[in-house]
Amino acid sequence: MSQITIIDLAQRLGLSKSTVSRAFRDSSDISPKTKARILAKAEELGFSPNLYASNLRVNRSQTIAIIIPEFGNNFFSQAIKGIELVARSKKYHTLVYVTDNSVQNEASIVRSLANGRVDGVLISASGEGKDHSHLQTMKDHNIPVVFFDRSYGDYPSYFVTGNDFESSRLATQHLIDNGCKRIAYLAINQMVSIGKIRMDGYKKALEDNGLDFDEQLLLDTENDEDVNKEAIRELIRTKQPDGVFASVERLAISTIRVVNEEGLKIPNDIKLICFSCLDIADLLSPSLSVVKQPAYEMGREAAKFLFGQINEPVGLEEQHTTWLESSLIFQRSSRK
Amino acid sequence: MSQITIIDLAQRLGLSKSTVSRAFRDSSDISPKTKARILAKAEELGFSPNLYASNLRVNRSQTIAIIIPEFGNNFFSQAIKGIELVARSKKYHTLVYVTDNSVQNEASIVRSLANGRVDGVLISASGEGKDHSHLQTMKDHNIPVVFFDRSYGDYPSYFVTGNDFESSRLATQHLIDNGCKRIAYLAINQMVSIGKIRMDGYKKALEDNGLDFDEQLLLDTENDEDVNKEAIRELIRTKQPDGVFASVERLAISTIRVVNEEGLKIPNDIKLICFSCLDIADLLSPSLSVVKQPAYEMGREAAKFLFGQINEPVGLEEQHTTWLESSLIFQRSSRK
Repeated sequence: MSQITIIDLAQRLGLSKSTVSRAFRDSSDISPKTKARILAKAEELGFSPNLYASNLRVNRSQTIAIIIPEFGNNFFSQAIKGIELVARSKKYHTLVYVTDNSVQNEASIVRSLANGRVDGVLISASGEGKDHSHLQTMKDHNIPVVFFDRSYGDYPSYFVTGNDFESSRLATQHLIDNGCKRIAYLAINQMVSIGKIRMDGYKKALEDNGLDFDEQLLLDTENDEDVNKEAIRELIRTKQPDGVFASVERLAISTIRVVNEEGLKIPNDIKLICFSCLDIADLLSPSLSVVKQPAYEMGREAAKFLFGQINEPVGLEEQHTTWLESSLIFQRSSRK
Repeated sequence: MSQITIIDLAQRLGLSKSTVSRAFRDSSDISPKTKARILAKAEELGFSPNLYASNLRVNRSQTIAIIIPEFGNNFFSQAIKGIELVARSKKYHTLVYVTDNSVQNEASIVRSLANGRVDGVLISASGEGKDHSHLQTMKDHNIPVVFFDRSYGDYPSYFVTGNDFESSRLATQHLIDNGCKRIAYLAINQMVSIGKIRMDGYKKALEDNGLDFDEQLLLDTENDEDVNKEAIRELIRTKQPDGVFASVERLAISTIRVVNEEGLKIPNDIKLICFSCLDIADLLSPSLSVVKQPAYEMGREAAKFLFGQINEPVGLEEQHTTWLESSLIFQRSSRK
């Protein structure tokens, strides 16, 4: 079978080329019945109006991009699921990019999207730094950007995230209520919004309870979990925390492994709580206390903002943040 | 800033338009130094040669698609990670589609890719049925398709998968060695290759040990885990299996929950093993015995086959399968 053209399709249907063309332009000049017949025949023959030619005309790629910092993480797979479902309902295609937590990679990906490949971009930011010129490129090309989970606060856009300050404060308060006095905080990239905000919630709870913030109990982590494990081991051996608050799931998993290897027990020797979207946290040994973000909903809401901006662009002067509430699920790992 | 054209770029560089154009065509007519200078300036200005115009000429979208049956599954997120990394190294863009285990959705996605949107497609098949005309569409448009994990055996293509027959046989043998005589098998879609092959390995182990295959111990499952949980509960109550072999991870998780809810114990009352890519199987209570597929490597190898086919197409008369070996990790859930 050679490639079907619009002329072939019109001949098979016994219709004029311009009638067939109207069906694809979604024109109101043809009856719904005729339109349905044309689209059904097109599907049967594997014909769709030439994508690129039609892009040149209407300047729509019917494609969005998702840019995330990492993949091995339940949060991002659930968020992508939420985004993908909205995109599918809009008959949009979804490009997925992973930056490996590198702002340079993020910049290079964003630049590659500037010339018509996508109608909009969803980003969970990979870092901060001061050079956001790659985002300026999107603005110059009128391509809307919506952030989810992690943003650059200075870029005017919609941003959908969790109520991380309050969740962190409550999670830390819970550890204090269960007797912890020396709570280690395992941080990720403090240069992105969630890094700062989650730590601020932790600090607030310490302050509320008259506990000093001890910088030696703060661990700045890497992307490499083997490196992190050794840093956590060192922290546990030398600083003897009685509680650990991990700002992302993989740091909590590394903590459990190190505590086991050191012959200590959770929760008896060290209590643990973390941000996590793991849906089997209750089946771990011991069951894991978590701040569970609504990852799927976050992806879905961010996608809705993006399609709003694609269909009816609104110029924003500053960032508009929507906070979705996380659930605090206290299980055995953090209890007396 | 208005949209940068190739003429603007040439002017900024003090070069002719045709010289600049050669850099983007990767022509050997210009020096590497000049080419590097042009590409650096293009990146700085956020210019790339008009994507769609250039597609019309060279017929390359620099894009591949991944079509998977479901998302909430560690296997697929790790496989996508492997694919994405290869695509990135080739400077390709990656579209991701989820079919929700529906062949109809798969067909409609594949058809939407026929007209130049992608240079190749990676599919983990969503079902069998007899109508593979959507794949024929790919063939008619000379778009290579490579399958991973789950395939349609009758479509001539490369296929990268696990050694599932042997892994299933060994996992079942392990349950028998640990005293199980009534092993339930939790199946997914027996119409896709892995459904059939995994069950065949289970049956072979029963046969090798002189145990009858009891159809009443076979549970055909749905996409909805709430429905599956009730079916597993019914099976456990009425058929009293002493072992469960779950062909995918989510069925094992449902089994653990039901066993707990029924007041039974794993492994004392029921032993459990499953296919799973969960990297915290050892942290579950009890630690979970798994057949662990090399998901990341499977994605990576499938992507390499696809880029081979994109760059130097080879006409295939039949399916060429590459089997990657899974690891059997026996932990507490399946032991005496």
